[in-house]
Amino acid sequence: MIVNKFLKKYQKIVKKNNSLVCIGLDSELTKIPKHLLKESDPIFNFNKAIIDATHDLVCAYKPNIAFYEAEGIKGLQSLKKTVDYLRKKYPAIPIICDAKRADIGNTNIGYVKNIFDYFGFDAVTVNPYLGKEAIEPFLDQKDKGIIILCKTSNPGAGELQDLKFKGKELWQIVAEKVNKKWNFNHNCLLVIGATYPEELKKIRKIIPEMVFLIPGIGAQGGEVERTVEAGKNKQGNGMIINSSRGIIFASNGRDFALAARRETKKLKDLINKYR
Amino acid sequence: MIVNKFLKKYQKIVKKNNSLVCIGLDSELTKIPKHLLKESDPIFNFNKAIIDATHDLVCAYKPNIAFYEAEGIKGLQSLKKTVDYLRKKYPAIPIICDAKRADIGNTNIGYVKNIFDYFGFDAVTVNPYLGKEAIEPFLDQKDKGIIILCKTSNPGAGELQDLKFKGKELWQIVAEKVNKKWNFNHNCLLVIGATYPEELKKIRKIIPEMVFLIPGIGAQGGEVERTVEAGKNKQGNGMIINSSRGIIFASNGRDFALAARRETKKLKDLINKYR
Repeated sequence: MIVNKFLKKYQKIVKKNNSLVCIGLDSELTKIPKHLLKESDPIFNFNKAIIDATHDLVCAYKPNIAFYEAEGIKGLQSLKKTVDYLRKKYPAIPIICDAKRADIGNTNIGYVKNIFDYFGFDAVTVNPYLGKEAIEPFLDQKDKGIIILCKTSNPGAGELQDLKFKGKELWQIVAEKVNKKWNFNHNCLLVIGATYPEELKKIRKIIPEMVFLIPGIGAQGGEVERTVEAGKNKQGNGMIINSSRGIIFASNGRDFALAARRETKKLKDLINKYR
Repeated sequence: MIVNKFLKKYQKIVKKNNSLVCIGLDSELTKIPKHLLKESDPIFNFNKAIIDATHDLVCAYKPNIAFYEAEGIKGLQSLKKTVDYLRKKYPAIPIICDAKRADIGNTNIGYVKNIFDYFGFDAVTVNPYLGKEAIEPFLDQKDKGIIILCKTSNPGAGELQDLKFKGKELWQIVAEKVNKKWNFNHNCLLVIGATYPEELKKIRKIIPEMVFLIPGIGAQGGEVERTVEAGKNKQGNGMIINSSRGIIFASNGRDFALAARRETKKLKDLINKYR
């Protein structure tokens, strides 16, 4: 039985929307449609339009905070408005902060305050390099989703993550540690890139039920069929499959929100075909 | 010959102030003296007083961004004011953003924009877990210092960092990779906790000249003599030794800035004794 609030929310919305698609709200100011730039808060207005056009087709939204930080405090104000809007208008949809944070123990409390208390996110991505002891302020958040980087989607991910320790790659050691020791609050998920379907398959075998956040579909080259076959659990679920640029920048004209809806629907249907 | 702007700045100030002390401006709102809370920007005023009282005794300041993010946008405004103040009033002192960032390639550009273009820091701490290819937007910053986590100061740092790959620990592999491959712009530094003097000694042997950022002195338990003996280069330099709480929270009364000066001086002299 799932008791974690974030995971409950996720399971409910997967059923309701029949979707495993997460939209990455990586709303770079230089890439959003030009006509929005005349408005007072182009990034928020862009996000709002994308959200309104896709809310019935997704299982989560995932802004990557780096794209908002890029614009300084103004960008973070747009992010705050986006999260506030989602929480008010679509409270059933989980919101993931892609921040890949990690520091030593007492410092992480600052990040926890920022991401959960100040912004109001439901989940956050976290880097495992400093170990469990360091990230406990995240792991202690019983109601939140703590999504730990395991095998990231970038081409050079293997430089450290594929190093073998006693026959096991670092990413596998991370996956096993999270599963056996870090997940004491049943709030952990793993990040595994769609660009590494073999690894995804292997981790799914080791951890049959945990939910995986899977970036790298679309613009980064991950293929849907192989990803879903490799990553699904017995119920054909257990995945949050993220697409960012392929959806939100599908058109840079006035039809951008409609184009985003069209691409989301396409991805949702394609994923469901293989679940 | 050092061509990197950040490292040049660092070498100059080390000479001028005859100091390897870096003050960690980890200015938690709940820990700063109560009488400051009546003012309009308590965190900035706290930082300003500490800086004014210590600027002739340090080689760098290092705000950890987590403590500012904890207060949301208001906290980040205090951070911006602090960096602006430092750049204007004490332009010779390098400012390090302790952010431990890392994402995939194009996303890191957002962090680079935030930390260097928006805030105006001279250097940033970066997490190596995603590999060189991912963090190239940081490594490409020829004028900045890119400080890569190697062996962090927290008690549980070894959980992943001490895993052995063909007889070498992960932290050693990171150190060697940074030294041989990541440092193509001669802008890399390493983070090694004062709490691990044996590792510090070993890394100094492998990399005789690189500058190390060394946190963990004081509140975290690292000892000055062992740290300096282990970490110094041939010239008795090559270290940025950070103390945060031990200096900035030395007193929580009206004498906090004077107390910070006293503690900074004490640490500076103790370090210099062993250089």
